[in-house]
Order: sequence, then C-alpha cells, then structure tokens
Amino acid sequence: MAISQRLHNFSAGPGTLPLEVISAVKEELPLYQETGASVMEISHRSAAYIAIEASARAALRRLLGLGEGWHILFLQGGASMQFHQVPLNFLPRAGSADYLITGTWARKAFAEAKRLGGARAAASSADEAFAYIPQRYDPSLSAAYLHFTSNNTVYGTQYSAAPDAPVPLVCDASSDFLSRPIEMHRYGLIYAGAQKNIGPAGVTVVLVRDDFLRRRNDALPTMLDYGTHAAKCFNTPPVYAVYVVDKVLQWLERQGGVAGIQAVNAKKAVLLYDAIDATDFYRGTVRPEARSQMNVTFRLPSTALEARFVEEAAEEGLAALKGHRSVGGIRASIYNACPLPAVEALVSFMRAFEKHHG
Amino acid sequence: MAISQRLHNFSAGPGTLPLEVISAVKEELPLYQETGASVMEISHRSAAYIAIEASARAALRRLLGLGEGWHILFLQGGASMQFHQVPLNFLPRAGSADYLITGTWARKAFAEAKRLGGARAAASSADEAFAYIPQRYDPSLSAAYLHFTSNNTVYGTQYSAAPDAPVPLVCDASSDFLSRPIEMHRYGLIYAGAQKNIGPAGVTVVLVRDDFLRRRNDALPTMLDYGTHAAKCFNTPPVYAVYVVDKVLQWLERQGGVAGIQAVNAKKAVLLYDAIDATDFYRGTVRPEARSQMNVTFRLPSTALEARFVEEAAEEGLAALKGHRSVGGIRASIYNACPLPAVEALVSFMRAFEKHHG
Repeated sequence: MAISQRLHNFSAGPGTLPLEVISAVKEELPLYQETGASVMEISHRSAAYIAIEASARAALRRLLGLGEGWHILFLQGGASMQFHQVPLNFLPRAGSADYLITGTWARKAFAEAKRLGGARAAASSADEAFAYIPQRYDPSLSAAYLHFTSNNTVYGTQYSAAPDAPVPLVCDASSDFLSRPIEMHRYGLIYAGAQKNIGPAGVTVVLVRDDFLRRRNDALPTMLDYGTHAAKCFNTPPVYAVYVVDKVLQWLERQGGVAGIQAVNAKKAVLLYDAIDATDFYRGTVRPEARSQMNVTFRLPSTALEARFVEEAAEEGLAALKGHRSVGGIRASIYNACPLPAVEALVSFMRAFEKHHG
Repeated sequence: MAISQRLHNFSAGPGTLPLEVISAVKEELPLYQETGASVMEISHRSAAYIAIEASARAALRRLLGLGEGWHILFLQGGASMQFHQVPLNFLPRAGSADYLITGTWARKAFAEAKRLGGARAAASSADEAFAYIPQRYDPSLSAAYLHFTSNNTVYGTQYSAAPDAPVPLVCDASSDFLSRPIEMHRYGLIYAGAQKNIGPAGVTVVLVRDDFLRRRNDALPTMLDYGTHAAKCFNTPPVYAVYVVDKVLQWLERQGGVAGIQAVNAKKAVLLYDAIDATDFYRGTVRPEARSQMNVTFRLPSTALEARFVEEAAEEGLAALKGHRSVGGIRASIYNACPLPAVEALVSFMRAFEKHHG
C-alpha cells in the first residue's frame, strides 16, 4: 500500500506533530530566513539560533506564567537521563527523597535515585498493576523533594492534580507537559522529553526554580550540573529539535495556550472513554478516576481480536494503536497535536469493528 | 539583504551539510515512505526507524571496516557528555588514565576525568598556546587508556596520525570523524558529536570495542553505562538526527567513502594553506606540520582588518569565518560537506581582499 496521505497517528512517542509545524519546517529547508543555510547548519552561537531559543523560552514563560525565578533548560538524554541527573543534583548525600511509584517510568526514576542514596517509595500502585493513582501517601518532612510521574504512558493513568506535599515537587511530565495548566509554585523542577507533546525526540525541557537549584550538591560533573546550563549556553544544544519545539509552542499559543488545548484534550478523552464505556466489548484497563487524558488504554475480549483491531485500524488509516509491549492491549495516545477528527475517526472505527466482530 | 541562495558556509559547527541531503530530507516531509507521517513523528520501535538505524550502522561498518567486535551507539549530550562518561566507565577507581592536552576540548575532557580519579596529563602543548601537536609523550603502561583529541577545532591543529600508545586509545574525533581512514585496531573507543562532519547537532556517535567495553566499572548509572546502549535500544534515541546522519553516510559512500573524501579534503586544505603561505598578509597560526585539514586558522595584519575581512566575506556569500571567540582571527572550517568550490571562492576572495587592503 503506497501511502500518499498522512495517517491518524496515535503513536505513544515520538508522537504526531501539528501538520502546520511540519509544513513550516519544510518551507524553511534548505534556507532559513537570512542565514543562507538551513537551521541544521547554523552555529548555536549565531544570532539566528539565539533568537530561536529566546523565542521558545518566551513562549514557555507565557504558556506557564513562569516568573523570572525559573530557569528553562534545553537538555539531552530524555527523561531517562533526568532519572539520574535529578538525584545526582538534589538527593543530599546524607539525606533522602520521596518517590511515588505509579508505573514503569516512576519505577525507573526511583531505581536510579536508589543507586545514589536514600530514596524512599512513599506510595505505590504496583499492587494492582498500576491501575490507579495512590490517593494517600506517607509524606516525609525531611525529604529533599517528592518525585512523581504526572502521566503514565504505559498503563494509561494520570494524576488529576499534583500530589500534596510538604516539600518541593519534582515531576516527570514527559507525557502530559503543556496539556493542562501547572501550579508552578508547588514545584522545584519539572522535566519533559519533548517527543510526546512538544516536539521531536532529542531535546528535554527542564524547568528549575532558582531557589531549588541553589540547594543542589556540589562537585558535580559539569554536564550533569543543572547550574552549568542555567548559567549559560555551555555546549552545542540539539539545535534542530529546539527549533521544532519553538514552532510547536507558537502553534500551541494559537490554540489558546494551555487552557485552550486542555479543553480540546478533555473533549477527545471524553469521546473516547465514552465509546469504551458504551459497551462490554471494550474494557478500560484502569480505574475510571485515574484515567489518562493522554494515553487511553483498553482491552478487547481476546488478544486475537486485539491483534485484528490494530491491523484493521491501520488499514483504515489509524496508526500505532498497539499497547506497550509490556502490557499488551490497545493504546491510543491522544497528545496535544492529535486532532479531534482523529479521535472521531477512531470512535467510528471502534463501533464498526464491534458490529463486525462483537 | 534577502538571502535567496545558500551561502558558502564555513561554520565550525553545527556545520554545513550536503545540499542533496537537505533536499532529500525536505522531500520526505511530511511523509516518509509508507509510514503516513514524517520521521519526526514515528516511534523509535517502528520498523521504519529500526531500518534507518540499521542502515546507518551498516554504512559506518563499511566506511570504517568495522568488525563485529565493535558496538555502534547513537547517544546524546555531545562530546561534552563523553568527557564525563568515558572516565566514569573506564577510569578504574584505583587506577589512572593518560590525557594528551592539545587544546580547549582536550583540556575539558581532562578536567572531567580528574573529577573522577587518577587522570594524568601525559603531554601538553599549552606552552605554545596549542600551536603544535606534541610529538613525544611519556607513556604509562598502567594507564587504562590514552585519551586524545584528533582535531582541535579552536586552534586549528590536527594529529597527522594517532599517537603511539602501549594502551588502548580513546579519541574525541568530533571534528574530523570520517574525514580520513582510522586504524581501528588501535582504539578502544571513539566518540564524535555529529554536528561537524556527519550530521546535525543532537546525536553523538560512539564506537566501542567489545573487549574494551568489558573492562568498564560496575554499578554505573543506567544511562551513562555504555553497556546499556550496547545491549539494546534502551530509550528514545534522537530519531531525526540519526535519520539525517544516515543520509550523510549514504552521501559519503557516494563520494568514494573515507578515502574518497580524504582526497577532496586534502585538495581543499592545500589550496587554502597555499593561499595563506603565498603572502605575508595572511599568517597561519599554528606550526605547519600540525595544521588541521578541517579548521584552517589564520590572522591578518590587524584585528581591524580581520573584522573587515569577516564582514566583506559575508557580503560575498562566504559565511561564518570568524575565529573562535577565545582566540580571535579567522577560521575557515572545511569539513567533509564543504565543497571544493566554496574553498575556491574563499581563496579568490582572499586575493581580492589583500589587493584592496594589503
């Protein structure tokens, strides 16, 4: 089958980007503005690139209402590198930090922290295969921070609000960053790999509050010290990825910002969960109150039917619906850039599929 | 001035890429092959991306004649992250490693190693402001490795051949990777940020020999353990950057591979150094035997004339000729993708400029 059209792309990440972003990027090859080159070929010390980074930072400040006390860093290595970098900087050598264990990524973050020192699992939903978000946990007043994963891509759960904590929050927001407002004053640091909601793979946005940054350990390796990057552009950033992120942020502002996209995201999620709940043929995998607005996970009556579902959906132009390899089932990732018509098409397909196979 | 043409781009990095690579990339937006999406939007677990990585690895194996004993990794964080990651993995806790100090980057690599343990400067050219490559050094038989920087982007020097060593070589080849053949059997590990010779910023190619890899320290942070990435695709790689690297490698093979490009690189360098040596107006900054084939550095009779040179060159479509901010002067970076006509244009401009201002 020759594909001459863009499919409805439900990839969990790298995920779909707004078509107008991709079109603008295409338009600026092989020449970007007055540079005489593409953005891939310009120095990170050039005026053109410095303007791109400044534009992305300004958009993030507007979108999240960030005050001057916040540093905005464009790092590399994804959330997986942050799992190490956060405790390396902020887990005191003789102290502790709290982790909320709500899925695969939270567990990985916790494991890296434990390699470095006194990290403690303050709550976990492992007892029910991560099908819920723990509503209570045992807070430690002496923890350096409380780490949580705001959305769990693999299991399809999401915090409806940030957990209460007597200490600064540190959040892996990779899979729901900028999909809804964030109460920034409760956080010390937020990180997000770009490849789900805000751009291509290869750049990690880190927001770190200045007073929290000052608490970091000393004698850190230069590249892993957040202070290095807060102070200046230390080394070559992932220029092209930052450029695409900037375009996504501009697009997001045209959608009405975080509040605007939150309304669209809610509409998409309601539509899809209603379709799941409308019948016994489809079955959501997590407790209703823990359902993610970003990754909608469900099962069919058999794994054979699930395989058939993924295959027939692909033939109808609905791509990347297979659940994570560790859990199986179906997963529709409906990040910011997944348009409402894609979800409508999926819901129609679900009805037709049930009619035929139910 | 509206720029409707690509300039001759002498940027030290991110540097110019072959126009046919940029054109092919443009052609594949917003649809890549049969995926129904662009490469920015496909999962790193998709068949399409797995094929891209396999293609890039196969090309690297052909270009360098790599046997099965070599792992090829696509990491993030640039050479700066490798400055930490190399000693973290390979500097034994009670042992030592040797470093050859030939410029800014070598010095930074050495500094990161010293943070972790017994690193020793086995030779240095700091005494003459890095204007030469030390021909002799004091080798240590007990060093875990000998680290060197094959080409020094800031000062414009380059090793004409890898240093003799009784221990495995570890090389930062960021600025001359794949510009000439490499005697792979002498190396334990080679790393290169892509943004000079092989692609856009945001991916670091690491070649590591399996028997060397097995000597690494234990209890490493997962993401900084080379073994993690040698074993499998552990986390989301910088998908788009790897895709562009693959296209550059295919282009390089069409140029006759490493031997083919080496001949072109030599021709470009001879042309440019001959122009410098033809007159007293221009003055090379390093000892002739240490001259880099990649970054050609020279001075004019005054800094005022140098500023004028950079400015008038830009007006003639010759971009990014300003020397590194730490040393001043003029620097023409003539990496693989810089075509011979760009160097010819620069040489003509140099003659005309001297005629006018000399």
